Amino acid sequence: MDEDSRLARWDQRTEVPLALASLAFLVGYAVHVLAQAITDGWRDLCFAVMLTAWAMFAADYGVRWRLSGQRLRFVRSHWLDGLVVVLPLLRPLRIVKLYEAVQRRRGRPRFSLHARVITYAGLSTGLLGFAGALAVYSQERGAPGANMKTFGDALWWTCETLTTVGYGDITPVTSRGRLIAVGMMACGLALLGAVTGSFSSWLIQVFSREDDSASGQGAPGPRNGERPPG
Amino acid sequence: MDEDSRLARWDQRTEVPLALASLAFLVGYAVHVLAQAITDGWRDLCFAVMLTAWAMFAADYGVRWRLSGQRLRFVRSHWLDGLVVVLPLLRPLRIVKLYEAVQRRRGRPRFSLHARVITYAGLSTGLLGFAGALAVYSQERGAPGANMKTFGDALWWTCETLTTVGYGDITPVTSRGRLIAVGMMACGLALLGAVTGSFSSWLIQVFSREDDSASGQGAPGPRNGERPPG
Amino acid sequence: MDEDSRLARWDQRTEVPLALASLAFLVGYAVHVLAQAITDGWRDLCFAVMLTAWAMFAADYGVRWRLSGQRLRFVRSHWLDGLVVVLPLLRPLRIVKLYEAVQRRRGRPRFSLHARVITYAGLSTGLLGFAGALAVYSQERGAPGANMKTFGDALWWTCETLTTVGYGDITPVTSRGRLIAVGMMACGLALLGAVTGSFSSWLIQVFSREDDSASGQGAPGPRNGERPPG
Amino acid sequence: MDEDSRLARWDQRTEVPLALASLAFLVGYAVHVLAQAITDGWRDLCFAVMLTAWAMFAADYGVRWRLSGQRLRFVRSHWLDGLVVVLPLLRPLRIVKLYEAVQRRRGRPRFSLHARVITYAGLSTGLLGFAGALAVYSQERGAPGANMKTFGDALWWTCETLTTVGYGDITPVTSRGRLIAVGMMACGLALLGAVTGSFSSWLIQVFSREDDSASGQGAPGPRNGERPPG
Repeated sequence: MDEDSRLARWDQRTEVPLALASLAFLVGYAVHVLAQAITDGWRDLCFAVMLTAWAMFAADYGVRWRLSGQRLRFVRSHWLDGLVVVLPLLRPLRIVKLYEAVQRRRGRPRFSLHARVITYAGLSTGLLGFAGALAVYSQERGAPGANMKTFGDALWWTCETLTTVGYGDITPVTSRGRLIAVGMMACGLALLGAVTGSFSSWLIQVFSREDDSASGQGAPGPRNGERPPG
Repeated sequence: MDEDSRLARWDQRTEVPLALASLAFLVGYAVHVLAQAITDGWRDLCFAVMLTAWAMFAADYGVRWRLSGQRLRFVRSHWLDGLVVVLPLLRPLRIVKLYEAVQRRRGRPRFSLHARVITYAGLSTGLLGFAGALAVYSQERGAPGANMKTFGDALWWTCETLTTVGYGDITPVTSRGRLIAVGMMACGLALLGAVTGSFSSWLIQVFSREDDSASGQGAPGPRNGERPPG
Repeated sequence: MDEDSRLARWDQRTEVPLALASLAFLVGYAVHVLAQAITDGWRDLCFAVMLTAWAMFAADYGVRWRLSGQRLRFVRSHWLDGLVVVLPLLRPLRIVKLYEAVQRRRGRPRFSLHARVITYAGLSTGLLGFAGALAVYSQERGAPGANMKTFGDALWWTCETLTTVGYGDITPVTSRGRLIAVGMMACGLALLGAVTGSFSSWLIQVFSREDDSASGQGAPGPRNGERPPG
Repeated sequence: MDEDSRLARWDQRTEVPLALASLAFLVGYAVHVLAQAITDGWRDLCFAVMLTAWAMFAADYGVRWRLSGQRLRFVRSHWLDGLVVVLPLLRPLRIVKLYEAVQRRRGRPRFSLHARVITYAGLSTGLLGFAGALAVYSQERGAPGANMKTFGDALWWTCETLTTVGYGDITPVTSRGRLIAVGMMACGLALLGAVTGSFSSWLIQVFSREDDSASGQGAPGPRNGERPPG
């Protein structure tokens, strides 16, 4: 109980700094990949930012492991957190949580369940797609025979891959690029499936609610005698 | 309460004119994009029609904001209506609602829930696809290296994109065309997912209903003793 | 009531002949499309078979309209039957029903709900795909610039289209071929969505049933005290 | 009853040896396909391993048929087992079951329902994809006009096929390769649909559970009065 509350307090306090570090990591990586013409000083700054953010993620993982009071079970039950330490590019996915935490503190009415799932999965897909486009682009750029020439191409390729349209006008040709692409396909398929499924459920819900309000409002009387108009 | 009823009356009265304006906008845009050889007089007429329709959408938005008695909350809770004012090409999606309203007034028995979701999502996809094909075609036509040469190509590309087949024989090459395409993919995926999901639910429902009627009719007696034949 | 029973008797009696006519139509069409080198006599026979089958479908539609005692409502509520009269190539989809009717008469235990939906939607997809491959192949064969050269190509194209993989190594280039392809995509998407959805539900059902049997069998006692072992 | 228990004992005893035989078959097939430069002695060993494993599968099928005490009904109700005897490359799919059996014996808490469906369907897809990539590669390698040149290409093609992205940069050109590909598409579609569907359900479940815990923890009091904080 005590450890749980200390863990909860730790989570609450580190939420904002870690989210900022995630953003900083993503921005640093984007500058590192996209800005080719920057001087060495800026390049070193990018690396410093990325390293600092990475160190923060690792420290957070360590502290939380400690506070949990568990040994190897922690690694197994928090494998997603461990993966994020190894692949810090996935970390920005947690920014979505921050947004929600901010809203919760302000006490605003939160969205409905479906809207939140769609928002969460949609934003995750967007961040994942952006990080993936950067990573694949950094591998493909300059590879012999590559047809992904600008970052715009990479973004377009990402969109047609995540929606499983897959025209094939742009495809990764390097082994590493393809490996990252496979990871993106797998995650994107699951996340967009969640978006699609939630949207579908939400639409059906809206239509069945409309039934009820229409039978009470638009018609002179209730149609099936279930609810008296008074 | 009073404002609600005034809003409802406004909605009811403006439904038909706004739907006609939506159709007029879509037709005007289609003529503007497809009819290249028309004289300047006709071209100006197209623009006039589109502008008038647009003004009607904006006025409707303003009046409804007023009537709602809300301030910024209205913008947030009616963001879809705001989007339609900015992108009037999406407005024809509301024609679907008109069709339903007409049916309701006539008092005809409405379709089942699944049928309505399929009809609504299917019609929306069709209108969205047509508007998107027009918009992408207007960007791609004439672009260097484009392989979308006729409007028939654009329609074929739309169908293979919305169903996520994505052969890749025809692909947008301009940045704007690709941006519109991404929007179409996202909407189409969600809408067609709703169609597919509803169709699947409906099919399962039909089959389980068939079970019941078969056990009462085709066999000499009820199979599981639930319903006596008499 | 009386009309209903007459309609039911008519359905029961015409089921087998109409199914055979459907098969004959499909075979006749396949021979007509695929067998190029046959003599004119055989070709005329094919046409005769197809015409006879078509006439049987139309007659069946007419008789059922009569027996229903309805006027225009029949057209609206049986629009699928009307569509089949116009596009007799879709008729073989009813063969699936015949198979089920035969099984029911023999009194064999029928499959579970999910298995039947999967079987029905899967077989429908297969028949639809075969008929569509024939129709598209008959349009594409000989068209300038077409890359669908053998019927094997057409079948391969059908499979990659219906599963929405869409490599794009083979694509229809004629307007008619593309029109048929769009119809196939729409139907295939919905039918395969039903197959996928049912399979998913079935798998989840199997796993949750396994839970129950495992807790009663593999472990020394029930895990959650719900069911005593005795 | 007695036969059931003997069948259960047989299943329990043969589970581990058969799983090892499955693995040996898969490894043997992989070596046979991929290792071109091995001497004839090693090649014969591969064949021997594969034949032995195959014989074990057939013997297991025969024994279980005997023990079941059924005649032709066994073939019909265990058609999946029969298929595995004919296509032993599908056998490794049962390794997944072994993993679960091992876990069950150790008494560890098993995963939740959704996690197990995702794990099972995901692992099955992986094994199916690997076996399919081997089979297609063995057909395509050396075929005239084939663009699947290395096994890495085959794996990449498998991933883009199973996720239905289908770029089309690599496609099978031989009839046999295409036949195997169609089988992979059908199975992959169903299995990945199960993964996507379960993930979607799981995500919605997580979000609705979060609702409950948030209303008890983050806010000063429960929001809807359902659960007192004490």
